Amino acid sequence: MKLYDFTLAPNPRRVRMFLAEKGIEMPPTEQINTREAGQFSAEFQKVNPRGTVPALVLDDGTLLTESISICRYFEELHPEPSLFGRDAKENAVIDMWNRRVEIECYAPAADVVRNSLEIFKDRAIPGMPNGVPQIAALAERGRASVARFVGRLDQQLADNQFIAGDYLSIADQTAFITFDFAKRGELEVPADAKNIARWQSEMAARPSASA
Amino acid sequence: MKLYDFTLAPNPRRVRMFLAEKGIEMPPTEQINTREAGQFSAEFQKVNPRGTVPALVLDDGTLLTESISICRYFEELHPEPSLFGRDAKENAVIDMWNRRVEIECYAPAADVVRNSLEIFKDRAIPGMPNGVPQIAALAERGRASVARFVGRLDQQLADNQFIAGDYLSIADQTAFITFDFAKRGELEVPADAKNIARWQSEMAARPSASA
Repeated sequence: MKLYDFTLAPNPRRVRMFLAEKGIEMPPTEQINTREAGQFSAEFQKVNPRGTVPALVLDDGTLLTESISICRYFEELHPEPSLFGRDAKENAVIDMWNRRVEIECYAPAADVVRNSLEIFKDRAIPGMPNGVPQIAALAERGRASVARFVGRLDQQLADNQFIAGDYLSIADQTAFITFDFAKRGELEVPADAKNIARWQSEMAARPSASA
Repeated sequence: MKLYDFTLAPNPRRVRMFLAEKGIEMPPTEQINTREAGQFSAEFQKVNPRGTVPALVLDDGTLLTESISICRYFEELHPEPSLFGRDAKENAVIDMWNRRVEIECYAPAADVVRNSLEIFKDRAIPGMPNGVPQIAALAERGRASVARFVGRLDQQLADNQFIAGDYLSIADQTAFITFDFAKRGELEVPADAKNIARWQSEMAARPSASA
């Protein structure tokens, strides 16, 4: 088993946090520096033609991309402590919240970052080395979407210790890496989102936060 | 249990197909006509303030939105036949392919539809009654992304009967509803994608296709 990782990217961090929270030892890793176009090297394109990290290669050669799918693989092998839910309802509620964070917050935050930062000029979609021009209006739409989600999440965290309820789940980890990533697009959580601030400081205090 | 459904929308269809394929009887349903702004009625906003269908309300009052999360709930209650995988590797591979279809095909197809059709003028994001102007350049980007994914999927289906391997999975259902939905944006699968055409005709022949 081998994990292709990049310590400065948000999605590989989610996998590392997940493994840390479950007490699973990190598999052998190789760093793919996506800030220096390492994902487009001939060598890595042979591993993952999509040009994204994280990527996990199993011992039988199976390639797993998509950080959440990689986390699900480890969850199945090491069920305790569960971060995807312990019964049908928890599974569904956690999956729903994880998707909401991804669709209503991560995706629009990525729209902001990829469509406004100079470093992503002409490559506004992950995995594409060039040919995808930035769209300023999409960055603007992304800002509004993130603000809308922040309001909803603050409300959810007023009544719940964690995002999906009174237990830590993958949805918390997705949100935690999202808010850190969003800072690259100058999307700070506003000071009046007090419940998010409370949750963020609890998340930051966990050893997994530095994974 | 009650399912809020709309027969003309792609995501509720995915839930109906999933239930049909597993032989689960449809729960009591209510139609929410999203083409006539039914999702923004005061009554439905009380059920799901996000204004999206499908939405499943459990007997204890828990609201599940997100079609995939609803499918996972039923999968856990009725494991056979499995559409999310039978072991750690299948789980991960199916989840990965389902995500690829959603992120690389459904999302850009939705970008095309929502940012080009007159019916979505000023409401280019699901769940927002107005205030979100269309972005023509995003529709154009979406067309290119869908075309790229179609090439990748045709290659995958050259070596596999179904998207995730030699068994039907939720990834096939997601792709099937996606390609039907994409027609609304005049995104037809090109004639030279012969493996997709073979798979599509097999999917269309299953009784679940008309659910």
